[in-house]
Amino acid sequence: MSANIGPLAGIRVLDLGRHISCPTCGMTLGDLGAEVIKVEKTGWGDDTRHSGEHVNGVNLYYPTENRNKKSVTINFRSEAGKELLRKLIETSDVLIENFRPGTMEKMGFGWEEVHRINPQLIMASINGYGEGSPYYLRPGFDSIMAASSGIMDINRSEAGPRITGGIWFIDIMAGMWTTIAVLAALRRRDTSGKGQYIDTAMYDSCLFSLNTFIPFFDQSGIITRNSTKNAYDCPAGLFKSKDGLVICLAGQDGLFNRLLTVMDDPFLHDPKFKDHDTRLMPEYYDLINAAVEREIQKKTGDEWDEIFDQIGVPGGKIKDLGDVMRSPATYARNATVKLEVPGLGLVTFPGTPLHFSDEELQFTPAPDLGEHNEEVYGGLLGLSEEEIQHLKDAGDI
Amino acid sequence: MSANIGPLAGIRVLDLGRHISCPTCGMTLGDLGAEVIKVEKTGWGDDTRHSGEHVNGVNLYYPTENRNKKSVTINFRSEAGKELLRKLIETSDVLIENFRPGTMEKMGFGWEEVHRINPQLIMASINGYGEGSPYYLRPGFDSIMAASSGIMDINRSEAGPRITGGIWFIDIMAGMWTTIAVLAALRRRDTSGKGQYIDTAMYDSCLFSLNTFIPFFDQSGIITRNSTKNAYDCPAGLFKSKDGLVICLAGQDGLFNRLLTVMDDPFLHDPKFKDHDTRLMPEYYDLINAAVEREIQKKTGDEWDEIFDQIGVPGGKIKDLGDVMRSPATYARNATVKLEVPGLGLVTFPGTPLHFSDEELQFTPAPDLGEHNEEVYGGLLGLSEEEIQHLKDAGDI
Repeated sequence: MSANIGPLAGIRVLDLGRHISCPTCGMTLGDLGAEVIKVEKTGWGDDTRHSGEHVNGVNLYYPTENRNKKSVTINFRSEAGKELLRKLIETSDVLIENFRPGTMEKMGFGWEEVHRINPQLIMASINGYGEGSPYYLRPGFDSIMAASSGIMDINRSEAGPRITGGIWFIDIMAGMWTTIAVLAALRRRDTSGKGQYIDTAMYDSCLFSLNTFIPFFDQSGIITRNSTKNAYDCPAGLFKSKDGLVICLAGQDGLFNRLLTVMDDPFLHDPKFKDHDTRLMPEYYDLINAAVEREIQKKTGDEWDEIFDQIGVPGGKIKDLGDVMRSPATYARNATVKLEVPGLGLVTFPGTPLHFSDEELQFTPAPDLGEHNEEVYGGLLGLSEEEIQHLKDAGDI
Repeated sequence: MSANIGPLAGIRVLDLGRHISCPTCGMTLGDLGAEVIKVEKTGWGDDTRHSGEHVNGVNLYYPTENRNKKSVTINFRSEAGKELLRKLIETSDVLIENFRPGTMEKMGFGWEEVHRINPQLIMASINGYGEGSPYYLRPGFDSIMAASSGIMDINRSEAGPRITGGIWFIDIMAGMWTTIAVLAALRRRDTSGKGQYIDTAMYDSCLFSLNTFIPFFDQSGIITRNSTKNAYDCPAGLFKSKDGLVICLAGQDGLFNRLLTVMDDPFLHDPKFKDHDTRLMPEYYDLINAAVEREIQKKTGDEWDEIFDQIGVPGGKIKDLGDVMRSPATYARNATVKLEVPGLGLVTFPGTPLHFSDEELQFTPAPDLGEHNEEVYGGLLGLSEEEIQHLKDAGDI
């Protein structure tokens, strides 16, 4: 790994994370230039090395969450392993973890002990409900949290079935909130000289993303589920095209006027429909949407992409992943990055939404299990080759 | 507003944002203790003051995104208005905005000009695709980005209909990425003494949250949509209970054994099903899921919540917002906060997922339009009462 140059250069992070949430935090800190040392279980590592998507027997789950990290192994149960972790804590700025609540305490690395070892270190835990919640000890998987927070119930149409997940944005958001908290705590440490403990609850993050659903339900008792059409604007929603679905948001008067420049249907050109509130009237709403759909069915999604762009109406094809991976937008900026995966060659991964005028972010492929044992235990902790060999032979690393 | 005490105390932010993404960034910086001045259009303000959810004629959209801010008004088209903005830029640390690309330039406040006015200021823009993308000028609404990034297509079951939205996590994530970038740029400024420009694209954020979908499709051409059952684990997914749906993830051998302690069905107790891979075999997969569902139908969702908790199996009721707002977890920590809304009284809003051992976060209700004109233009910029009155009379504030 080349010298780190991002805005977090000089910050050392221990990433004890598994799965998605905590590794996303570690990877983001690494994208920003921190030295991130992923501390993994000897002989096995993060479970994601063995689960999820594989192609030709090669795992793609771990590499997605763990670029820009070094990997060291530790036997968390052996005294020698714990001594290594203690030394790493002494020399680091941040420790992040998402074991089940209580696990770090059982290993002898609860916040009080960690704070005693290194008072300047910031420690962050991610779990389902957070300390102080009556459900603190319940597990915090993405889909379980979607179910328990009301998100799974809302993220469907009024009539449609619920689904288990889709993209794992609940895990990812938990990692992002933790990143924000770590950066804020680093700023505080600059003046206080002291580390502190961060405790991110996925449940809190879910409620945050429920946004106006919460105050509106609090005051009205109504759950405003979404459907294929928007109740506040007409025409607005999903419409069938010649070859699939498109979205079109032309409910504001100015946008509706622009839409009319490409739609001939005389019904739509009735002057009374120039008024937003008239279009929402129950006797017109469905008829207008139906007329717009008849027009949209005359052309393909790709054609509507171009037309909406030209007339300045928000809308376009509902793209599937194949469309997305063929789009030039996917290869602009750092929207995606190509990284080497042994056995597969260059693979396209998500890039980063972090985009600065004066920072050059670097992307190093995810490490093999224990790839940096010698570098970290030898170089950073100063152990001799013999000592490292001894730790290996004893199963401590 | 009382004295700011969070980790960002002393940082002044100009929030020119509208809708959800940028205001979420400003609010988060405010939650962390920054002084956030929301700069709004004279006489109208953020569109969210007039749209979205209302109860008894009182708007709930704006207050959800804009706590912990001061509000000042500016006529962005008048010279006197622009002079005020220039003075605010001179005295601030951060400026965030999500106008359509090019708008700030047209107003005379593109990055180059802003940087000239105050070289230490960090400026962040949020838009759909970002500078350098072929679609830079296309609009970036949440549901439009869900459609164009493949998320809308993936966030449904294989058979189910697509929906326009659900929760607005795409907007929220864009605000969160911008918050991370601003905090990183503040850290850089501590050593460089210089501000820089941040340009967050919602498209990049969407691709980031597609996670393993991208490398897996890149290497296999397969889109792995989710359904009501998990293809990698059995039993795992959604099941009908006596009164609705529950989720149950008991696909790992240890978890399946625990599940069997509360299910009598002799079919499930067949010793060969103790093996994970056997349960996934096509000839057993559906039968096992069906047998589990028969057992789950015997009890209610609330009963399964308790049972899953007791036996340590990840699972529970698919809660609707009513269940969530009755849950004690919703009132622990800062998962929700109660804030005064004129005309309604105390309203429950989402709180913050930012949770620190040594920080006391404060929550001040969203401001009225221009509520802090006197405080900011008089106190901060040093204008006299007469000058402020003159600006008011001329329609500049």
